[in-house]
Amino acid sequence: MVDIIHRVGIKAPISKVYAALATVEGIAGWWTTETKGVSKPGGNIETRFLSLSGKEIGSMAFEVLELDPDKKVRWRVTSGPEEWIGTDVVFNLTQDGEYTIVLFGHKNWREAVEFTSHCSMKWAIFMLSLKELVETGKGRPSPHDIKIDNWN
Amino acid sequence: MVDIIHRVGIKAPISKVYAALATVEGIAGWWTTETKGVSKPGGNIETRFLSLSGKEIGSMAFEVLELDPDKKVRWRVTSGPEEWIGTDVVFNLTQDGEYTIVLFGHKNWREAVEFTSHCSMKWAIFMLSLKELVETGKGRPSPHDIKIDNWN
Repeated sequence: MVDIIHRVGIKAPISKVYAALATVEGIAGWWTTETKGVSKPGGNIETRFLSLSGKEIGSMAFEVLELDPDKKVRWRVTSGPEEWIGTDVVFNLTQDGEYTIVLFGHKNWREAVEFTSHCSMKWAIFMLSLKELVETGKGRPSPHDIKIDNWN
Repeated sequence: MVDIIHRVGIKAPISKVYAALATVEGIAGWWTTETKGVSKPGGNIETRFLSLSGKEIGSMAFEVLELDPDKKVRWRVTSGPEEWIGTDVVFNLTQDGEYTIVLFGHKNWREAVEFTSHCSMKWAIFMLSLKELVETGKGRPSPHDIKIDNWN
């Protein structure tokens, strides 16, 4: 199995970072504006990714597996790109001085393919967006995300 | 073994991207301004990372293993953080329409530790810097790199 892993430190209380990960409104502020569903254990969240002109370029759905306040959020991908289905997206939170540390993982890819490399880079972009959202009040969710290659 | 992998697409001729990876001047433009050495097969490159106030926060050295013009650059880490020693840093280049695609790998970590997650995020930041350098003429090498957590 292959994992994408990233670490960011956010200068904010852990509860603020948790809220950005554990609520639909929070997720819409850093990942994609087109986020809906129910963020509670067993609930489902749907995300759509649009181009700036409004064309859909992708969509995904997740089951919320864990919501451990101020500690952990875990989703399981139930639909979306074929390589994503059955993988887990995990956020582990800890406090380190004035920083909330986010250990991000997109875990259990069957193999490392070129699309994995693309997604690793895009998750880094969205972790930056999460940091900006919590620290400044304004993230860069899709369709306003930084574009990194010819795929997005 | 654990690999960090990223994909970026750069709107520029492949030769320009290759030059940014295969020359000391190029590397100094996107990774760290403090880069010196000899970029030829068997040569050694040394990098230092300073804070904005000039304090050294890290240093590394690499042997250049492969320089395949417009196709591939590969380094082996010979000194630096303990976890890095013996790992390989690889850049594979291909053309896709108006983009040069960079498939980046920092390969053969013995295990995935928290420092791996930090480095994955920082490599993404430096891949963005490489893209900016080649597309606009100005990258964000250390010490002007985007800070992502309490470690750097």
